[in-house]
Amino acid sequence: MSTILGQNQYGKAENRVVKITRDGATHHIKDLNVSVSLSGDMDEVHYSGSNASVLPTDTTKNTVFAFAKEHGIESAEQFGIHLARHFVTSQEPIHRARIRIEEYAWERIEGSDATSGKRHSFARSGQEVRLTQVTYDGSAWEVVSGLKDLTVLNSTDSEFWGYVKDKYTTLQETNDRILATEVSGRWRFNWTDDAAEMPDWEASYQETRKHLLQAFADTYSLSLQQTMYEMGKRIIDSRSEIDEVRFSLPNKHHFLVDLEPFGLKNDNEVYFAADRPYGLIEATILRDGCEARIPVDLTNL
Amino acid sequence: MSTILGQNQYGKAENRVVKITRDGATHHIKDLNVSVSLSGDMDEVHYSGSNASVLPTDTTKNTVFAFAKEHGIESAEQFGIHLARHFVTSQEPIHRARIRIEEYAWERIEGSDATSGKRHSFARSGQEVRLTQVTYDGSAWEVVSGLKDLTVLNSTDSEFWGYVKDKYTTLQETNDRILATEVSGRWRFNWTDDAAEMPDWEASYQETRKHLLQAFADTYSLSLQQTMYEMGKRIIDSRSEIDEVRFSLPNKHHFLVDLEPFGLKNDNEVYFAADRPYGLIEATILRDGCEARIPVDLTNL
Amino acid sequence: MSTILGQNQYGKAENRVVKITRDGATHHIKDLNVSVSLSGDMDEVHYSGSNASVLPTDTTKNTVFAFAKEHGIESAEQFGIHLARHFVTSQEPIHRARIRIEEYAWERIEGSDATSGKRHSFARSGQEVRLTQVTYDGSAWEVVSGLKDLTVLNSTDSEFWGYVKDKYTTLQETNDRILATEVSGRWRFNWTDDAAEMPDWEASYQETRKHLLQAFADTYSLSLQQTMYEMGKRIIDSRSEIDEVRFSLPNKHHFLVDLEPFGLKNDNEVYFAADRPYGLIEATILRDGCEARIPVDLTNL
Amino acid sequence: MSTILGQNQYGKAENRVVKITRDGATHHIKDLNVSVSLSGDMDEVHYSGSNASVLPTDTTKNTVFAFAKEHGIESAEQFGIHLARHFVTSQEPIHRARIRIEEYAWERIEGSDATSGKRHSFARSGQEVRLTQVTYDGSAWEVVSGLKDLTVLNSTDSEFWGYVKDKYTTLQETNDRILATEVSGRWRFNWTDDAAEMPDWEASYQETRKHLLQAFADTYSLSLQQTMYEMGKRIIDSRSEIDEVRFSLPNKHHFLVDLEPFGLKNDNEVYFAADRPYGLIEATILRDGCEARIPVDLTNL
Repeated sequence: MSTILGQNQYGKAENRVVKITRDGATHHIKDLNVSVSLSGDMDEVHYSGSNASVLPTDTTKNTVFAFAKEHGIESAEQFGIHLARHFVTSQEPIHRARIRIEEYAWERIEGSDATSGKRHSFARSGQEVRLTQVTYDGSAWEVVSGLKDLTVLNSTDSEFWGYVKDKYTTLQETNDRILATEVSGRWRFNWTDDAAEMPDWEASYQETRKHLLQAFADTYSLSLQQTMYEMGKRIIDSRSEIDEVRFSLPNKHHFLVDLEPFGLKNDNEVYFAADRPYGLIEATILRDGCEARIPVDLTNL
Repeated sequence: MSTILGQNQYGKAENRVVKITRDGATHHIKDLNVSVSLSGDMDEVHYSGSNASVLPTDTTKNTVFAFAKEHGIESAEQFGIHLARHFVTSQEPIHRARIRIEEYAWERIEGSDATSGKRHSFARSGQEVRLTQVTYDGSAWEVVSGLKDLTVLNSTDSEFWGYVKDKYTTLQETNDRILATEVSGRWRFNWTDDAAEMPDWEASYQETRKHLLQAFADTYSLSLQQTMYEMGKRIIDSRSEIDEVRFSLPNKHHFLVDLEPFGLKNDNEVYFAADRPYGLIEATILRDGCEARIPVDLTNL
Repeated sequence: MSTILGQNQYGKAENRVVKITRDGATHHIKDLNVSVSLSGDMDEVHYSGSNASVLPTDTTKNTVFAFAKEHGIESAEQFGIHLARHFVTSQEPIHRARIRIEEYAWERIEGSDATSGKRHSFARSGQEVRLTQVTYDGSAWEVVSGLKDLTVLNSTDSEFWGYVKDKYTTLQETNDRILATEVSGRWRFNWTDDAAEMPDWEASYQETRKHLLQAFADTYSLSLQQTMYEMGKRIIDSRSEIDEVRFSLPNKHHFLVDLEPFGLKNDNEVYFAADRPYGLIEATILRDGCEARIPVDLTNL
Repeated sequence: MSTILGQNQYGKAENRVVKITRDGATHHIKDLNVSVSLSGDMDEVHYSGSNASVLPTDTTKNTVFAFAKEHGIESAEQFGIHLARHFVTSQEPIHRARIRIEEYAWERIEGSDATSGKRHSFARSGQEVRLTQVTYDGSAWEVVSGLKDLTVLNSTDSEFWGYVKDKYTTLQETNDRILATEVSGRWRFNWTDDAAEMPDWEASYQETRKHLLQAFADTYSLSLQQTMYEMGKRIIDSRSEIDEVRFSLPNKHHFLVDLEPFGLKNDNEVYFAADRPYGLIEATILRDGCEARIPVDLTNL
């Protein structure tokens, strides 16, 4: 045979499961988008089309919905762990399961009568999308969580100067600019072993997000690279359960508009928010002594 | 001539202007997407290509940025009024200006040192997009404001039964379902005359949004039409500056998943959030005695 | 009652129906996205939630799929006519039906063996989306067809000069520029009466599209307005079944890049394709003596 | 230091360059979206914010536009090679450059006068987006080309049966179904050395695309995995310049609609085209003896 099969995986992507939990008149909501990806002893289906080792993607979809009932959804990470364990341990040909989950947050809407006792109305928060990816091979776990679509902006305390100039350089240096980005971040937990105690996934997310935002706000920036590194460093320094952070940060340019043709002075007041092109700044920040494992291409924009 | 020119308009769309206002170390941000559309004595440019009456769309763009400096951005509505008045009164061939604006809200990010005094960091809220459309013909104003992309959900207090059945009907009646929609709403102000006092545009928006959400939460729903009508009625009843409301509400179906094949009972817990198709429910709600003026097709989905 | 109900409509939107017709080993495909919108005697469902006059949106969905079998899909227009007639004539409370359809074109893929006789493989063409909107009130028909997402470009034969200059004008005149737009067009047929012979919808679409493109290519342009008018005029002049055309044409700016800082001359060779802002040019072109009926807001961008 | 910097890269993404070449009255167009990503001796900018080794992303943008003039755009691959070589060889701190390019195809529009001699009008084809990624580290080249957004469909000759059933399996077996996917494919060239002759990039793309489509059409499919493998195998067998293929194929489900409730038989005629969830089938297909180098996460959906 002149060609051979390399890495392969399959499953049902983007299962949109919403779980309502009723605590009397107070309802709780979890809203997930769950993608299942399975690997293992799957050569034959590629070579001959025999599905004898293939659990249908439709079944993996059913399992997502059934598990929402059987296990509930305590957190995206815990839900992914239930699913990954199930596929690897219940199907002999499946040696590895990767569960990717997007979570959409909801806020409560209050009705006009605060005494009604009813708490079943929600508005989708619309800010960042929370992410997790759980991988299991039957022995070790890898959990990489994160977020995307979180747009942040500092309206000052950002400079950019002292850079290399070549024959194609026309950019002017600046001592005061807007720094804005849409954060796509991932962080890898050092929990890998069932025998170890799991992190508190919900608390970890909230705290990591807080540190990320605080570092963005605190840093007097000489480059987006510096701000990005400070954001990763703050997470590593503050959260012992996390060993690695990966960021992919588009530099959402806000250009100071030249108002001089109209006899006006633009004292860092009026900006044009540009779409494309944009700077794209990416890096891994690691706890010293740890190995980088988050793929460079995980956060393809 | 066998063909003639009908309604026509032109201008620069989607000017993304960000305005920073500095109050010492406390910064404020306004983030708008402004579209200009002008009409008037424009036959010749269509018939012969003569631009003698055409103010370039590039100039309308420049005007947006210059006006952010000259007038500031007190509110999207007030900014649109400045622009519309300018085009109609400064250019003889322009008889009508329509300014459409999207506004994106930002929340403050607090740094780790609450005593720093610095307040220049923001995260985009990501929830609804605020809208306004200001039209001016040199004598009367029309202001239609609104919002889009606000996703809301009631996890109970929604029924659907007693409907018409024909030979193509298979739907089962239900006494407890999720009711969810992504609100696209517009409301028309009765302010039309420069001599009258303008509404407080910022307060009006916040209050109208509040009433809309409260009516959604309060209504025990027998149909999305009923809920929609209650939302419009609440606005009309509560806000004397508004005479007309138009909604375009997709019914974001959350289907109860059948778990019986897996030996599980789904007691209104696990739902599949569907994409397409979706019910689409649209209506105008009017103050009695007022004329409907918001176009049915304004909120094309 | 202080508030009243105005115009309202409802139905199932975006029913994605694919119809395969087998002619031996040669298959044919029709791929539609069908949105149903019904109006009539619907006050009660808004005021009280009574669904006694409401045919469920789910039923309208079922009808779309059943009609694909019962009537086939000869053309999008003919399919819309079948649906609209059915809803208005079979349900007493429904007085008006509007069917909107998007159609996606497919091209055949040839296998490696031209003698196999098999013709059941297709690639989606991906160019424009064909559109139609059929409205019926029980007596008269209105059919508005069109297209969107058709991006066209002339790399020369476009000028822009002789325009109005005010204090905010900085644009330089040009005698040679790229003219590009993404065509969103609608055209209204003068067929309204069942007693009259219907147009050949398929042939009409192909010819109208051809004339639109030829007029774009033929016109030496002094403004996008002029090109747009010529496109509409060509359709009216060439297609007797069409009385009205509406265009919404974003001016997709291609800016000549200033290469002088790098010691290079840019002789209309290298352009930056910009996203936002963009000029937006809109107009109705009418057969002389006909009334404009396509809503200005039908083609909201 | 408790944290360290791992892999990092930066540059200007999504530079939209359009190149017009005039051959008398016949014009040619190349339309690219170019993203530059540079790596090297960049620790200091992350740790301290010093930009002393940083060529600004704005300069990388300028270089893209200047190179379109200086080198022309013979093919996306050749253009990427010019850029990557420039950055690595001209800037000491830059050790590696990765250039990603999307290319949009255009077709000619003919005017109404075939004798005019004018050939400067184009319509964007809208079908697949052509892709390439060129990486250079100063000694070896890696070129990975491909495409995305190419939707293909077989209306028969697809079965699915004989799969694993577990307690969550409800899917019915089928001997005749629609098989459709939106192809995202990448292929790696074995050209790595400046001393070797380069492939003919344009011919290679056209031929590879043809083989991919023919294999899709030719294969009687028992699973999408089998079809995918045949597509990759056909490329490897037919194109000696390619050693590795990676596919990410969403199974675009077309569900046979149950028309029995309406007394109708659906003989593989009427389908519902679903959005989410979808099966996602991914694999690498390799020339025997070659090493897999296309990252599994390159084609993140």
